[in-house]
Amino acid sequence: MIQLVFSAPDGVWDEYAPVLPGALAEAGLEAQIAQAGEVAPEAVDYIVFAPSGPIADFTPYTRARAALSLWAGVEQIVGNETLTMPLARMVDPKMTEGMVQWVLGHTMRHHLGLDAHIVNPEGEWRFFVPPLPEDRVVTVLGLGALGAACARALAGAGFAVRGWSRGAKEIEGVACFSGDAGLRDALNGAQIIVTLLPATPATENTLNTETLGWLAQGSFVLNPGRGTLIDDAALLKALKSGRLAHATLDTFRDEPLPRDHPFWANPGVTVTAHTASATRPASAAQSIAQNIRRAEAGEGLVGLVDRAAGY
Amino acid sequence: MIQLVFSAPDGVWDEYAPVLPGALAEAGLEAQIAQAGEVAPEAVDYIVFAPSGPIADFTPYTRARAALSLWAGVEQIVGNETLTMPLARMVDPKMTEGMVQWVLGHTMRHHLGLDAHIVNPEGEWRFFVPPLPEDRVVTVLGLGALGAACARALAGAGFAVRGWSRGAKEIEGVACFSGDAGLRDALNGAQIIVTLLPATPATENTLNTETLGWLAQGSFVLNPGRGTLIDDAALLKALKSGRLAHATLDTFRDEPLPRDHPFWANPGVTVTAHTASATRPASAAQSIAQNIRRAEAGEGLVGLVDRAAGY
Repeated sequence: MIQLVFSAPDGVWDEYAPVLPGALAEAGLEAQIAQAGEVAPEAVDYIVFAPSGPIADFTPYTRARAALSLWAGVEQIVGNETLTMPLARMVDPKMTEGMVQWVLGHTMRHHLGLDAHIVNPEGEWRFFVPPLPEDRVVTVLGLGALGAACARALAGAGFAVRGWSRGAKEIEGVACFSGDAGLRDALNGAQIIVTLLPATPATENTLNTETLGWLAQGSFVLNPGRGTLIDDAALLKALKSGRLAHATLDTFRDEPLPRDHPFWANPGVTVTAHTASATRPASAAQSIAQNIRRAEAGEGLVGLVDRAAGY
Repeated sequence: MIQLVFSAPDGVWDEYAPVLPGALAEAGLEAQIAQAGEVAPEAVDYIVFAPSGPIADFTPYTRARAALSLWAGVEQIVGNETLTMPLARMVDPKMTEGMVQWVLGHTMRHHLGLDAHIVNPEGEWRFFVPPLPEDRVVTVLGLGALGAACARALAGAGFAVRGWSRGAKEIEGVACFSGDAGLRDALNGAQIIVTLLPATPATENTLNTETLGWLAQGSFVLNPGRGTLIDDAALLKALKSGRLAHATLDTFRDEPLPRDHPFWANPGVTVTAHTASATRPASAAQSIAQNIRRAEAGEGLVGLVDRAAGY
């Protein structure tokens, strides 16, 4: 019998209770799940958790063979020195699908200029012919599981897609750039920019006054990744100058975005409520079950975090 | 030497002058182009025209081997009894691509609920998780060149796509229905409906009080096809009752949509300005040149209109 402990903020267990036991059984595992505080830490084999749940000190979990995060982003966990067992971030294909949808939807929206029709209080007949997607350069910063899926989907929709990652990658139909030197080539003249880098000290303010200056005049920024990837003040300045026509942001340094933050009142900013990467419990439960099955079989964890790199 | 006459409203020739001669030459044709009134009708081999241009009586064009419309919709032409030569509607792959973009963009917009973030004057943090596309039924009415391309693209984006056409068709990844009996199966419980039927007496008011009643509660209508496909009063009633959550309309019985039309003031309606099927002169010129080449070679015309069917 495998012992799991589940540690997440109030309400999260209610979403997993109907699906996690079945997913474990379907993976061929005999397992029982306890809430944090309801099982002796030294009896726990696997920790399933969200960073804002009750378990912050992992020291007593001496037997735990892995910690499985319910979130894709692990920047709030990776510095926790008590977390010494293997750590896996959430890799949920349905979450990837949701992210691809958000990115494709907002890219199409800006590409086609839909806002001019959606918000048209004077009832003007606004005829304009948008460019075809092959004439629109979309750059995806970050080519991990999420970024690569978005780059592929955008290329599939016909856009001229560039991708950038720290280390070199290759994706069919995507012009890939890497390293510090490649960033400028990836951003130079780009019209729609999607930021999907992990939040690390190295990626902080990747979009700043200098790099925003490389974009095409009147370009669009989509940030479904992490709030720290963008220098907020530089973004507001670029909106004011017209370098950026619009920014659609799903992630922020403080969430929910404080009511008095200038993003809310800026007509050039659309705020979405960290919805792009929502984990869907049914499929997330299957990912967790499969990772435990892999660990029990001595296979590598999907989404294993490299603590030194920070993701 | 092949003699063409070009007949379209003011300004249209300015868009074709830079591209049509080159397209004809590229197709291996020795041709000259005259404006309507600048060439003897009996000397004309091919008529390239828009329905609202100067040529309305085709009788004097005794030698013309075909009339090639600059528009995809031919309902304003098909009843013209003086037009007895073969008639081809515009089939422009780039126009198809533009239509697919409009349909995919507005489908994603409604599917993801983007308007709730785009129009959010109070700055509310609106967290909601949209369904995945496989859980969203999208029905495309009309499976001609445009409808079939849209159905394929929507299926490619992961939606649960149904298609309907008068005669039976098959499209991979699309549940196809046909005939009067099939219409109810195609619409029953559908959540997003795209109308791309030709405008004929048989398709008038295809969406009416009865057929709108078959849709899912809170569904969405997209009409990039023709204004006559929808009973306007029934649409407004369905919006009021909540059967429809929103309608995004690109085509209308009168265009531009009159300023006092109730669609403008209805928050449940988005008006776009007949932009979905904009012809792009560079690619349209190539389609025309290729059709003339085909006619000269004794091959069938692409987009040949069946006058009895009306499209």
